[in-house]
Amino acid sequence: MPAEGWERALQHSDIAIPVLRRVRAERPLVHNITNFVVMNVTANALLAVGASPAMVHAPEEAKHFAALSRSLVINIGTLDDTFVDGMFRAAKAARRQAIPWVLDPVGVGATRYRRKTVAKLLKREPAVIRANASEIIAMSGAAAKASGVDAGDSSESALAAAEALHKATGAVVAVTGATDYVVSGEGVVSLTGGHALSQAVTGTGCITTALVGACLAVAPPRDAAIAALALMKAAAEAAAEGAAGPGSFAVALIDRLAALSGAA
Amino acid sequence: MPAEGWERALQHSDIAIPVLRRVRAERPLVHNITNFVVMNVTANALLAVGASPAMVHAPEEAKHFAALSRSLVINIGTLDDTFVDGMFRAAKAARRQAIPWVLDPVGVGATRYRRKTVAKLLKREPAVIRANASEIIAMSGAAAKASGVDAGDSSESALAAAEALHKATGAVVAVTGATDYVVSGEGVVSLTGGHALSQAVTGTGCITTALVGACLAVAPPRDAAIAALALMKAAAEAAAEGAAGPGSFAVALIDRLAALSGAA
Amino acid sequence: MPAEGWERALQHSDIAIPVLRRVRAERPLVHNITNFVVMNVTANALLAVGASPAMVHAPEEAKHFAALSRSLVINIGTLDDTFVDGMFRAAKAARRQAIPWVLDPVGVGATRYRRKTVAKLLKREPAVIRANASEIIAMSGAAAKASGVDAGDSSESALAAAEALHKATGAVVAVTGATDYVVSGEGVVSLTGGHALSQAVTGTGCITTALVGACLAVAPPRDAAIAALALMKAAAEAAAEGAAGPGSFAVALIDRLAALSGAA
Repeated sequence: MPAEGWERALQHSDIAIPVLRRVRAERPLVHNITNFVVMNVTANALLAVGASPAMVHAPEEAKHFAALSRSLVINIGTLDDTFVDGMFRAAKAARRQAIPWVLDPVGVGATRYRRKTVAKLLKREPAVIRANASEIIAMSGAAAKASGVDAGDSSESALAAAEALHKATGAVVAVTGATDYVVSGEGVVSLTGGHALSQAVTGTGCITTALVGACLAVAPPRDAAIAALALMKAAAEAAAEGAAGPGSFAVALIDRLAALSGAA
Repeated sequence: MPAEGWERALQHSDIAIPVLRRVRAERPLVHNITNFVVMNVTANALLAVGASPAMVHAPEEAKHFAALSRSLVINIGTLDDTFVDGMFRAAKAARRQAIPWVLDPVGVGATRYRRKTVAKLLKREPAVIRANASEIIAMSGAAAKASGVDAGDSSESALAAAEALHKATGAVVAVTGATDYVVSGEGVVSLTGGHALSQAVTGTGCITTALVGACLAVAPPRDAAIAALALMKAAAEAAAEGAAGPGSFAVALIDRLAALSGAA
Repeated sequence: MPAEGWERALQHSDIAIPVLRRVRAERPLVHNITNFVVMNVTANALLAVGASPAMVHAPEEAKHFAALSRSLVINIGTLDDTFVDGMFRAAKAARRQAIPWVLDPVGVGATRYRRKTVAKLLKREPAVIRANASEIIAMSGAAAKASGVDAGDSSESALAAAEALHKATGAVVAVTGATDYVVSGEGVVSLTGGHALSQAVTGTGCITTALVGACLAVAPPRDAAIAALALMKAAAEAAAEGAAGPGSFAVALIDRLAALSGAA
């Protein structure tokens, strides 16, 4: 895909393009407290779109980094008490200083520890919640199908739960899957496309959340969510062309994120 | 390699093919408490063969995840007290509920802390132990050559130690190297082939262990070990074709695991 | 690049070539206490040049691993109290046994926690400090531009600070950027070239530090720093040829490190 043509690949390009251009122009510092599995790939995805990632979790400094940053990403994938302590402090500092943050409640339905952690984090008022259908359903209190961290439910089936979660929290809710939905006070926006290989690579959901974080640094929550989801759909489609499997798809995804955001 | 031909690439295909087909059909949840170096690549390898990985270590929830899962993988590579606590709880819950688990005693010979941790884990009765020759020799109490985490001994030289370890623990013992051996109550099975580039990439042993975990979810320990080792040998051979070095080999390995398991 | 030609690609080849040959010949065990983001890529980079990496951080065993190893790499990227405790013990053991070690003070200017940790580590006398310009300036006590972990200053602008840091600590100071500088008692050596894609991939600085660690195992600090920096510049140039973006560049970088060091 030639760099000059990337704008045509994006859905909701009237929103996505200006947001992505601002990320590239401003190189915002994005503070991430995320899981061990995806620290490398989410840092690379953030660099690919032109943001400046910092991965910092220690309770001693998490709140300072949140205050230095333009946005914050909290992902509970491999949480433990040290990380949870850092998450609470960072989210508190972010709220106090009006720094927007995005929550990825990985596997929230699986254990009481995750549910409790997410409940406490919600009190720190994330601007966006990005999750798969099973996680959104679990957060709404209904029974979800997923046993682990993968989605067992379709994104459509989570739409009512997403709307309830938006109303309860005020956060923009982004449910990703074969079709993505962004639920906000301005109704529901959907995004189609993408590629099934995204499900065959660990961390594509976490990358999407990180990109929401990058966009949150420069745009309102609804625009940030739409821009990040549109970019991931387009990058996945482009990356799947010529990929020999999930390994080469994951590599091409970073290449394409950089090309689509105009960074390479 | 065309997908329709993948079955011919596997050694012990009478065992390996039915096991791999069951993994793909059943998409078992595989709980991993593994090291930081390989969390991403082992999750991707598990997805590539069709399993559903969960990487969860916190003492607060490790036992719950073990109980939700169909098998458990414990790898001590970058252990510390938080992880060790999670390992003990998960292994205890797995044994209580007859969920099979595989142990990867990374670098067990190097420090007292590793030896003590492995000794305690053995009391929780792993179904399979997957290790390199130096680790197997160290576990048997003899002096091994390795100074770090790489094997300094040939897999042949560990065969007597593997048999002693099998007798002492009841676990199926898989020693991997240039030639792999699976030692069980039904004698010794060997696998040849593979590729030397596997030694040039970090975590190929850990990936093998994770794949044993995927197969353990659907098959008895000896069959699971043979299937996982056969798949890794075949995938490594295929990945080495056209690889420009260890970086592209690691990417192709995931592509080939997906192709060989029929998932792509 | 044919393997027989790799020597021509290296700057300061009179120093770099003999050092890299010794690494390959001796396969030194290099102990790393590094950050979560780069554990996988730095282990793969160390394997690519022929070293034997061990990633070990637990306070219970860090000092034992340092004593088993030929060199030690300490990188504070994602530090927390458990890792910091391991770092202090390992550095202490290394100094006591005259095992050389290299410090990567990631993001040192950002928080008091990082400044305090680095100040304590400096008392354990690293043989080399490898950092970007903003970090070197922060360590020298002056005000630096970086808000996060990326360099906001040019390497030239840090040269005076690097010289002051060398004088204050006795360590060889390697400042990397568009131009790299190695400051030692024998004056300043510079290296040009490399490729801008290195800035688009997370952990290229951390990889450089790890390679300094590999070279430190077989050569004096100044030679080790020059050899590692020369290798990274040459590998980055070669990797950029034909790379479609930062994803494929990162893969090719490992391939090229292996080819340039003669390991593949």
